[in-house]
Amino acid sequence: MSIIRQDPTTREWVIIAAERMRRPHEYNHPDETRLRAVANGPCPFCPGHEASTPEEVFRLPDSSGTGWAVRVTSNKFPALGDGGGLERRETGPLFREMDGVGTHEVIIETPAHDRTLAIMTDHEVADILTAYQARYRALRKDPRLKYIMIFKNHGEAAGTSLAHPHSQLVATPVPPMLLRRKYDVAVAHYDDTGRCLYRDIADEERQAKSRVVLETDRFLVFHPFASRVAFETWIMPKRHQPSFGQVSEEDLHELAPVLRRTLRALYDRLDDPDFNYIIHSAPIEDENKAYYLWHIQILPRLSTIAGFELGSGIFISTMLPEQSASVIREHHQASVDGAST
Amino acid sequence: MSIIRQDPTTREWVIIAAERMRRPHEYNHPDETRLRAVANGPCPFCPGHEASTPEEVFRLPDSSGTGWAVRVTSNKFPALGDGGGLERRETGPLFREMDGVGTHEVIIETPAHDRTLAIMTDHEVADILTAYQARYRALRKDPRLKYIMIFKNHGEAAGTSLAHPHSQLVATPVPPMLLRRKYDVAVAHYDDTGRCLYRDIADEERQAKSRVVLETDRFLVFHPFASRVAFETWIMPKRHQPSFGQVSEEDLHELAPVLRRTLRALYDRLDDPDFNYIIHSAPIEDENKAYYLWHIQILPRLSTIAGFELGSGIFISTMLPEQSASVIREHHQASVDGAST
Repeated sequence: MSIIRQDPTTREWVIIAAERMRRPHEYNHPDETRLRAVANGPCPFCPGHEASTPEEVFRLPDSSGTGWAVRVTSNKFPALGDGGGLERRETGPLFREMDGVGTHEVIIETPAHDRTLAIMTDHEVADILTAYQARYRALRKDPRLKYIMIFKNHGEAAGTSLAHPHSQLVATPVPPMLLRRKYDVAVAHYDDTGRCLYRDIADEERQAKSRVVLETDRFLVFHPFASRVAFETWIMPKRHQPSFGQVSEEDLHELAPVLRRTLRALYDRLDDPDFNYIIHSAPIEDENKAYYLWHIQILPRLSTIAGFELGSGIFISTMLPEQSASVIREHHQASVDGAST
Repeated sequence: MSIIRQDPTTREWVIIAAERMRRPHEYNHPDETRLRAVANGPCPFCPGHEASTPEEVFRLPDSSGTGWAVRVTSNKFPALGDGGGLERRETGPLFREMDGVGTHEVIIETPAHDRTLAIMTDHEVADILTAYQARYRALRKDPRLKYIMIFKNHGEAAGTSLAHPHSQLVATPVPPMLLRRKYDVAVAHYDDTGRCLYRDIADEERQAKSRVVLETDRFLVFHPFASRVAFETWIMPKRHQPSFGQVSEEDLHELAPVLRRTLRALYDRLDDPDFNYIIHSAPIEDENKAYYLWHIQILPRLSTIAGFELGSGIFISTMLPEQSASVIREHHQASVDGAST
């Protein structure tokens, strides 16, 4: 089992999952070693190899009814797992740790090894979002879990060790400091103004226009004012929904083409860039409050996170969001003028 | 000039340095493009090409007195620069920005293109530390600057775009949120206990022994309790010194072999790993207070920072610091038994 330790200088938690490193010599380049090991064998996420993944926790059937469209399984090298308790142990007055309790799942997005979200159909993307939400809703009932994060690593620079399209879900027994920070800022804004911070941001972005790239009845897509990286993109609902678990089926079917078109524009304009996306939600116990709005943050990984970012937390971006948004708006316009998409 | 914008959801600042991207097509992979461009020409950091770097702000002569041992110049693609003022502008009630005022310098560590800190002599390392400190002391007099960070990116995975050994110094007109966080935690500890948090951590590490890898009269080297990555290493002074600017010449000459041996152990055991190091100091205006201790944080980049880390701020490490510390202690023991080092 992994353990969770608190950094006494920041009070942030760190997960130490020593079993994710399978053999001692892997400490050199664990990700690459694992990637090579997997590349040499058959892909465990492809149809016919279902037995080589850990326990399946969710499945959507394909249209024929004989196979699957999306599968969710436990992670083979989980950062957090089911055993252990929530008690903190102090191994010294400053050194606090606890068991690595939580959930770490893999969403296998498609049976097709070489497919990717940007070139899927709306129906395929909707299936993936449906799987995300089913797992979010199932796990939020577990009283040990404080926060559920769904995210995707696409490409080596974004930390993928398996090529077959997949996303991940991690549920933690402690709230991440970054979430606490975002949440505290949102609560302070609500106390000051009586309004949701994210709603106000959406209103200002809509008024400024220059960073908005797409708008539908229910969703707004924009490049945020203080983008951390070039082409950072946020997708935000227009109605009040603190957590991704609250999204309705109608919302999901409108979100699917919005997410697909957003990823397709990046795929076309940046030549299938490596990227991460993160679905941010309120802490589970606060999902009925007025402060927060779930949102998808897409971070293309065009440059490397280096010492300055790691040491200060300040990112250095190389492009104004107004510039990148104009590139993407042009793309959407051309797609509409041209044909399909 | 670059601009600095505040993220309204975290209140953290982001630097947008659009001129770091020299041509529009570079937005795909700016770092790689620059690396290729530089690799095709002569190295601007090698002797004989001094004219191809921006203004030199510091130089240590070599032993012959005709050449240089260490040079410090302005960065050719600065994230922050000299023009502009400190006023914040609001482009909307939530959107705050300011000029990219500050300093961004490059410390060229040696005339030798293929050398690296781990295999230098103590004297060469002492020269680099002397240059760091001279620049720190010169810049802390600038009232516009709030924080000075010296850091190094070694290897592509750590964000280096130039092979010739170099470090960087960035001085910011706003305090980074991560520094504020570390500082607030340290002040709270001082208020609670009347003692410096970092001194207490050093005492606990010395008592636990299991994470300590090296100790000299003036310095303690250990793998921190909540290591963010495998083989994370901290070097901390034993005397009270909030800022790197306060280090004495005697301290520097003891620090040089400590830093070199620490990097050499990682070089030997992990096969010249990519790494970042960061010299953390107190905010400039607080460097005479009792709360903080400067320290060097070394982060080997053995795995990729992926969506979970970016979305939550929580790192997943693959090795207990007790395990990695024992590997490094063995190395130091073998070096002492064997010969030189």
